[in-house]
Formats: sequence, structure tokens, C-alpha cells
Amino acid sequence: MSERECKELTLSATAKFLKKHDDFIILTHSSPDGDTLGSAYALYYGLKEIGKTAQVLCPDLIPQKYSYFAVKTDHITSDSPTVVSVDVADEKLLGALEDNFKGKIVLAIDHHISNTRFADNLLLDSSASAACEIIYELLGALKVNINDVTAKALYTGIATDTGCFKYSNVTAKTHTIASELFEYNIDAAEINRLMFDTKSKRLLQLERMVLDTAEYHFDDKCIVLTVTDKMQEETGCSGPDLEGIAIISRSVEGVIAGITIKQTGDNSFKISLRTINPLDASEICKTLGGGGHKGAAGATVEGTLEEVKEKILAAVKTGMEKANVWASADK
Amino acid sequence: MSERECKELTLSATAKFLKKHDDFIILTHSSPDGDTLGSAYALYYGLKEIGKTAQVLCPDLIPQKYSYFAVKTDHITSDSPTVVSVDVADEKLLGALEDNFKGKIVLAIDHHISNTRFADNLLLDSSASAACEIIYELLGALKVNINDVTAKALYTGIATDTGCFKYSNVTAKTHTIASELFEYNIDAAEINRLMFDTKSKRLLQLERMVLDTAEYHFDDKCIVLTVTDKMQEETGCSGPDLEGIAIISRSVEGVIAGITIKQTGDNSFKISLRTINPLDASEICKTLGGGGHKGAAGATVEGTLEEVKEKILAAVKTGMEKANVWASADK
Repeated sequence: MSERECKELTLSATAKFLKKHDDFIILTHSSPDGDTLGSAYALYYGLKEIGKTAQVLCPDLIPQKYSYFAVKTDHITSDSPTVVSVDVADEKLLGALEDNFKGKIVLAIDHHISNTRFADNLLLDSSASAACEIIYELLGALKVNINDVTAKALYTGIATDTGCFKYSNVTAKTHTIASELFEYNIDAAEINRLMFDTKSKRLLQLERMVLDTAEYHFDDKCIVLTVTDKMQEETGCSGPDLEGIAIISRSVEGVIAGITIKQTGDNSFKISLRTINPLDASEICKTLGGGGHKGAAGATVEGTLEEVKEKILAAVKTGMEKANVWASADK
Repeated sequence: MSERECKELTLSATAKFLKKHDDFIILTHSSPDGDTLGSAYALYYGLKEIGKTAQVLCPDLIPQKYSYFAVKTDHITSDSPTVVSVDVADEKLLGALEDNFKGKIVLAIDHHISNTRFADNLLLDSSASAACEIIYELLGALKVNINDVTAKALYTGIATDTGCFKYSNVTAKTHTIASELFEYNIDAAEINRLMFDTKSKRLLQLERMVLDTAEYHFDDKCIVLTVTDKMQEETGCSGPDLEGIAIISRSVEGVIAGITIKQTGDNSFKISLRTINPLDASEICKTLGGGGHKGAAGATVEGTLEEVKEKILAAVKTGMEKANVWASADK
């Protein structure tokens, strides 16, 4: 397949582009999060302010918790709507909407450096912690009035993509924008409670079961947590619920290798490894045929639970020896 | 006892005051947290920059995790040092240092509206999310250079007192200051990992035990968690470790009354109640002889665990009926 030409736009060129068109379809990525939704709805509100019609389309059901800004949008009937994607790094991430919109996206607004340049035009700022940072600046370039709901949508995207300003993607600009959004009536504390301090009963139940499996190794520098099929069935937890478990594994004081082993089939397990300097999760997982980043990587390994555990522990041990983490401690 | 006269100072008057004196003792409150320590050390670094000598005194051991800014300070030998307290709302909170310094504090820098005005002079800003916000502005008024370590100390205080910008005490100014601190080399993500994503092995073990006790009541609108003497003994968890447990109780989706019952004696239990609007934790706990705030309150109740549980559940039920929380749901 030949690659389409993708033109990178500046903020002001993007603002001009939006002003020139009238009927917009705004696409989010599948398994929608606060940033893709916040971006889509903030852009929707902005376009409404300058007299356009716009419809937000999300490939999946929008979780109830975003209902304070994710409202009913226009129904676009135009034969040739202007299709814009927000926070979508690759057309594949359009999920159920991919077939309908593949090759038809005229503008992508994104902050992922890995954006595959699938759109005719691209507004990309990979230094932005969230796509909502870019949308905020775009609304500024469009000179539209931001209302409280728009500010809530933008704040939600920034807060969720940064773990509430906790992660390394936060910059001075992130806080400056947050400060400006506080000029509106956003009730950030309530947004944060909904986004960060609310977990499902089933997840709490799963956490309890998983904590029961905790095993420490290598002078407590390594913890192993296990999620079996049975636990997933009993609690009804799946995909997104399980993300948080891997985070627990790295949160224990003194632990530099947090291993989560999740059963994916009768004889198949997915390993998530979270590490702390100087340990390199990506290198360790590569030895098992997987990969990832320095601090977080994964691999799929076949075998019984005991066999899989042995393999990852051996790989972690080798990684620890290589990184010389015992140099200053008793072995 | 007659009340001492306490003079409220402005920022610039406080800066002038500090310039006029030479040898400082800076006091933190007991059970030191990121804000009292961040304030003390940032003030220490600032005073050093303008050629003063200063010693930070903390009533308790300073936890290891603050060592990236909490260094060895001067040893003050002056007979009449200038004693300054930071983030101390009441002389009682000086703990082991109270006897030595009661009535001798000439300047208190604080953000608690409840400050008991124990010092000769007071720089108070109750709109500040953290005392570190005030110290940041004070260093500005003193026109001292902020270095990376000072910026780390200030960021730590602001981040810890706001739950990493999560709570309702955050203002536009909080984010503006954070943005300015990001101009320094503070590695905020690493600070946040240390402050928020690191829990002790013993706490993880306690959480596991406590989650095993989870009981749901009133259509899952209420959860009860129990911490027994035995659990505290087995895990070695105490005081500060237990704070986090009450937070878990309110984090479950749909729960508006999170109850934590902690054994404090053979026949005595401390109840922590966390509620969500419209339920009033303070009113409910008052009926059991306790008190607190609308969202978080407590009471000490005598009896067996079963008796205590019955009492608090009855009180919560009455509170729910009063707040009419079943109005739109099945009873």
C-alpha cells in the first residue's frame, strides 16, 4: 500500500482549516480514556461556538463516569463531512470505526510521537502531556470562549493522561494550562475523585485475591503477583481492570522488579514487568521474546504457572546481576 | 493563661523581619510530612542564600524518603536565636520540642486557618494549599535565588499536601507555582513516585488482611473494613500506616459511606467514617460521641466488634434515611 501524503500543520493553520469547513465528525480511539474523550468534546464545544455542526463518534460505549462533559452531540447528515481524529496514533485504534473511516481522516490532532501519519493533515505536539493540551491551545488560536464544561473536559484529559500531574510527561506548560483552567468552575477535586479514587467492587475483590498470591524474591527486591483465570471469572474483571494490578507490583518499598503473571489460556501466561532504575524491564523481557520500555515491559510465555514463574525469575536474576544491584547490599 | 499578642505580618514585612535577624532555628511539626519539611528546608536554603545561619529542628526522626532535600543544617549556638515555626498550627504539634520552645516562637509561617496564634508574629495564608506555597512567595519577596534542591523541597510540600494536585485545596495559584518550579531540575516524577507510589511491605500485607474483612451493606452503598489488634501486631503496622486504609473504604464505586473499624483496646474501637455527598459523616459520628468534617469524621466506641459494628451501621442507616439517599433507588 502506498503511503498517503500527510501534511503537518501549525496551530494557526489548523485553526484556519477548521474555520473553512462546516460539518465535522470527531473520532476518538477505542477503549476511550479521559484524554481522547476530553479532546473530542472540547473540540466539539469549540466548533459549536464558531457556528459549526459537529458529531463525536466513539468506537465503544462511553463510560458513565464521563457524563459530566460527554453529552449528546449533533447528528451529521452531510455527504462529505470533515473527519477529524483526536488522540488517535494509528487508524487501527479506531476499532469498530476503522472500516468506515480508514483513509477518510482529513485532520489528526495528536500528541503521540508514534503517530503513523494516516491523515491528510496532522497537528502533532509530542511534547504535550495530553492531546487536551493541544486542543486547549487550538481553542485559543480559534479565539473561542471556553465555558465551564469545556474546561472540565480539557482538565479531565490532562489529569488522566498524567496520573493527576504525577508522571514524567508533565511539563511547566501542563501546570500553566491547569492553572488557567482553574479560572473556570471545574470542581477539579470531584473530577479527580471520579477518575482516580473510584474503583469497582470487582476490582477491589480481585486486588484482595491477587495480594494473597504475593511472593517476594531476591532479598525482597522482587515481588510476584499472580492473576489466574479463576480469579478473573470469579470477579468478572478483565482488560482495563487489570492495568492497576501491575502498578501495585512496583509500589512496594524496596522492590525494583514487580512481576505480574496473568493467565491468558490453559498453558499460556502474559507477564508484565515493572522495574525501577537501574533495572531494564525491556531487556529482561526481550530474553523471553517480549519487549517494551525501560520501566515497563511484557512477554507472553507458554508453560505451567510454575514453569513461567521460574523463567521470568531467572531472567530477572540475570538482569539484576548485570545491573549489579547487589553491589552495595548482602546477596 | 493570658493570650500573647500575635501580630499578623505581610509577605514583605516578613521578608524584612528575616533580613534583620541572623541566627535562626526553624521548627517543624511532629510526625513530619512533606509540607512541614519542605517548608523548613526551603526556608533554610533561602536564609543561607542571604548569609544567615539556620538550623532545622524536627521533633521526630525525618523519614529517609525525604533525604533528597533534608540535609544536615547549621548548628546554632547563639543564646538568642530567632525561632520560626513552619506549617505548625498549634504549639502542641511541636511534640518533643514543645517544652523547649513553648512561648519562644517569634515567627510562625502557616496556612492553617485554625492557627492558634501562639507566635509573636504570624505570616498566615489560609488560601494556600501548602505552607510551601507561602515559602515560595516569601523567597520571591526576599529576592533569593532558588536552586534545584530548594525547588524540590517546595514541590514536595505542595504535592504532598494536595495529594498530587488532587484535592479541593488546589487553586490556580498552586498550579502556577508548580509550573514555575518546573523551570528547575526537580524530577517531579521521581518525587511523586517516592511520595505516592511507594508503600511498605507491611502495609501491603495489612491491606490484604483488611480487604478480606470487607462487608457491604445497604445496597452496597456502605462498606465496612476492620483492622484488628492481631493484624496490627502481625504486620507491625501502626498510626500513619493506617491512614491509607480509610481512604480505600471510600474509593469503591457506588459506596457513599466507607467505615473503617480499628481496634484500640480489648473492648474499644476507633471508627473512621468517610462519606460522599449528600451523606454527612460529622453528623453521623456525633450521634456516637465523635465528630469531624462533612466528608471525614470519627468516633471511639466501646463494646465488642459486633456491637460496635451494629452501632455505626445503625447510625449510618439513620443518616442515609435523613439524606434520603434511597429516593431514586430500590430500598
